[in-house]
Amino acid sequence: MKTMKRVMLAVVITLMAFAAKGQTNTSAEDSIRAADAAWEKTYEAKDLEKAVAFCDEQGSLLWPNSPVATGRNAITKLTASAFAIPDFRLTWHPDKVGVARSGDLGYTSGSYTWSFKDASGKPVSDKGKYLTVWKKQADGSWKVLFDMFNTDMPQ
Amino acid sequence: MKTMKRVMLAVVITLMAFAAKGQTNTSAEDSIRAADAAWEKTYEAKDLEKAVAFCDEQGSLLWPNSPVATGRNAITKLTASAFAIPDFRLTWHPDKVGVARSGDLGYTSGSYTWSFKDASGKPVSDKGKYLTVWKKQADGSWKVLFDMFNTDMPQ
Repeated sequence: MKTMKRVMLAVVITLMAFAAKGQTNTSAEDSIRAADAAWEKTYEAKDLEKAVAFCDEQGSLLWPNSPVATGRNAITKLTASAFAIPDFRLTWHPDKVGVARSGDLGYTSGSYTWSFKDASGKPVSDKGKYLTVWKKQADGSWKVLFDMFNTDMPQ
Repeated sequence: MKTMKRVMLAVVITLMAFAAKGQTNTSAEDSIRAADAAWEKTYEAKDLEKAVAFCDEQGSLLWPNSPVATGRNAITKLTASAFAIPDFRLTWHPDKVGVARSGDLGYTSGSYTWSFKDASGKPVSDKGKYLTVWKKQADGSWKVLFDMFNTDMPQ
């Protein structure tokens, strides 16, 4: 009977662990939302190193008017070219955050505003939407697997 | 002892079920890839009803030069407006397909080519990249939660 009690206990603990896993999605969503907000801060600060560090080693930036930038080097180059634009200012905010039941893959999506000065020094502003796919890392942090945006403005 | 054996059997079956779930990711990826290809066929055929049916009830099209279209009505309207463009032809192909361990959320990403005739009848063509987030439905099918694309061409 002692062994059976132990087995029963193991079953109960296993089931509780799986039940708890199901309930961690809210906190996983909070973690992704926090990563999204922290990444946005690195853009406000134009902190290239920290901005790039938010991307997965195999991450891709799918930005308009540019081929896909995959991996640390390409992401650094593309991000640096954005930060180098005169008076570049990009802010964004997620409207939707979601995560898989297994808590290893999630997304944020929302709106951005972007302003800068063009080659002639004229201020330009743009607003649109974005979609970011986040992948949980071995250390528990969330990093960008894909990031994409485009304008809402008519052509 | 009979009860204990039954409990042990239940534990083994539970563990086997979870192990099997972990191994279904390759076939889940195949299912997402197949959904992506089938959705693309509805665009080649300009079959509005079938194209829209690939989208989740709460799905969003995040297309350039247009606000986000969320839900069946908005998706139908935006898709219909694309299909109505003279000589509209859109094809795409995924380069990357991934799925969460839990098999309920996945993505496809790749390249598209698009051609049409503008208001003056001049042929226009564009190529770029896309990112689609897929959500598994209660019936086991995969539907589009987010679909986004933008051009590779310089501004």
